[in-house]
Amino acid sequence: MKTKILTLLRNSQDYISGQELCDAMGVSRTAIWKVMNQLKEEGYEIVAVQNKGYKLVSYPDVLSASEIGSRLKGKWTGSEIHFFQETGSTNNDAKKMAEEGCKNGTLIVANRQLAGRGRRGRTWESPADNSVYMTLVLRPAFPPAKASMLTLVMALSATKALEEITGLLVKIKWPNDIIINNKKICGILTEMNAEPDFIHYVVIGMGTNVNISSFPEELSDKASSLKLETGRTVNRTQVIAKVMEYFEEVYESFLQTLDLTLLMAEYNSHLANKDARVKVLDPKEEFEGIARGINEFGELIVEKENGEVTLVFAGEVSVRGIYGYL
Amino acid sequence: MKTKILTLLRNSQDYISGQELCDAMGVSRTAIWKVMNQLKEEGYEIVAVQNKGYKLVSYPDVLSASEIGSRLKGKWTGSEIHFFQETGSTNNDAKKMAEEGCKNGTLIVANRQLAGRGRRGRTWESPADNSVYMTLVLRPAFPPAKASMLTLVMALSATKALEEITGLLVKIKWPNDIIINNKKICGILTEMNAEPDFIHYVVIGMGTNVNISSFPEELSDKASSLKLETGRTVNRTQVIAKVMEYFEEVYESFLQTLDLTLLMAEYNSHLANKDARVKVLDPKEEFEGIARGINEFGELIVEKENGEVTLVFAGEVSVRGIYGYL
Repeated sequence: MKTKILTLLRNSQDYISGQELCDAMGVSRTAIWKVMNQLKEEGYEIVAVQNKGYKLVSYPDVLSASEIGSRLKGKWTGSEIHFFQETGSTNNDAKKMAEEGCKNGTLIVANRQLAGRGRRGRTWESPADNSVYMTLVLRPAFPPAKASMLTLVMALSATKALEEITGLLVKIKWPNDIIINNKKICGILTEMNAEPDFIHYVVIGMGTNVNISSFPEELSDKASSLKLETGRTVNRTQVIAKVMEYFEEVYESFLQTLDLTLLMAEYNSHLANKDARVKVLDPKEEFEGIARGINEFGELIVEKENGEVTLVFAGEVSVRGIYGYL
Repeated sequence: MKTKILTLLRNSQDYISGQELCDAMGVSRTAIWKVMNQLKEEGYEIVAVQNKGYKLVSYPDVLSASEIGSRLKGKWTGSEIHFFQETGSTNNDAKKMAEEGCKNGTLIVANRQLAGRGRRGRTWESPADNSVYMTLVLRPAFPPAKASMLTLVMALSATKALEEITGLLVKIKWPNDIIINNKKICGILTEMNAEPDFIHYVVIGMGTNVNISSFPEELSDKASSLKLETGRTVNRTQVIAKVMEYFEEVYESFLQTLDLTLLMAEYNSHLANKDARVKVLDPKEEFEGIARGINEFGELIVEKENGEVTLVFAGEVSVRGIYGYL
């Protein structure tokens, strides 16, 4: 009920009368009044004027299942929403819920992670109150070999969302990092559970530095936050809602061809490594070249000095820019 | 200690003196005597003769961690052994243990499964006392795209093990079933947890009908057991130990090339579908053809009537033989 009332308040330009709310919810005025008090306690500023009704004047940067639910606009993302003030890792929660049968589109969000993870088990620092840690559960019908492209689908969605929110240029460091002004803002971790020919579920986790005010010196030239780059506080729920909104759109394009044919040009226009020297850390041999962009399978096209062109698979290598990028 | 004493007893042709056992284990005679009593209670027939020592005369078809541990001969399979009289599904147990960090080569065995699973969530009937339900945990360094071949690696290992044990011709129904005299004896279920470019773990589960004496009528022309086909009771621990022994050998060949180049010929010599008509249940279109064998990537080579050759990936289709096989 709280989610629905919050949605009605948020979507109304003017006051909503208590009677309207009672009718919409099918509950008593007292019940409405109780929810209003709960919302005020959570930090929402709600003005109540006699004969006019209620109006939401301002809202805090709090995360809660109701707050997130009231702002998601998608058709299927957030089909279930689970919010934790504190958890180990939202990807781990997502995997557990997926094992237990949660729906496609289930979204897990935390205010803090105690054991946040990056790729290959690396640590992801996850302080409270100033970041977004979220994981989306998918149950796709396509074969496991296609799943590696989902990291790129999410990266493009996040890029579009963050550009809209910040008004800044947002770039992608292939395959899974989002950067602004050459500094890392956001990382994506895709994990999959599958039989050789059948995906049980995919979880796509994303950690975003939103309102972090400062970084330790050794990180400050590599990492940043939306607040540091824009000079203003950014509402975290807006980040979640916008990323999900774009994800639905971008994912639909992906599903049309089951590859990145329709998304490749836009992805490449955001590619930080484009036409830059990169070092490919292949297990067999390390080599350098110029990154020319991704192909329709999400592989990075790297041109060596001798003109030879190599396709780098999301999986078999790491790429480290030599000039500029991490 | 029980496992080690059992191993010593099993590997000795003659009596082993109590003193020898004390020295080998570094414990007192009383401790040895206690273990002997435990073993007798579990059904092992152990003869104790004064001035000679102990001798294992016969052993029952009981499953236990000690029994399995004392018979495994491999270098790394069974690095940890977990045995359950009853469990939901050994693949689920394996996944859980893998999440918690269990070793490469961990082996989970159950006497009964309450929620045994086949491919794509199908049920796998798992009665007590007459079958083997086992799952092996791998933590390979190769990329996720290679993992689909592990089903074939296990299928070939199981085929070789069951031929040695039964003396019968054992065939493979591509990709994951083992059959004797056209009837299913054993199924394999591989599951993987991975990032796009990095395998966290693979679990390979195998259910084998060992001493089942009869099947319901509707299944009796499709399924069978080692006992029904050989006319004698087969020791279940022997099945586990032999499959693991061959798995280490076959897997080593796989690792040399990271494909089935070295195993293809042997796999094809066991392929039940070889040169048989098959129906390929492709999501796009169903088609029929003659199966010619697998290629080095484990794909089934199917020749259509018009001479066109199609490669069927383990994942994207199901194959159903039209004449003879399920």
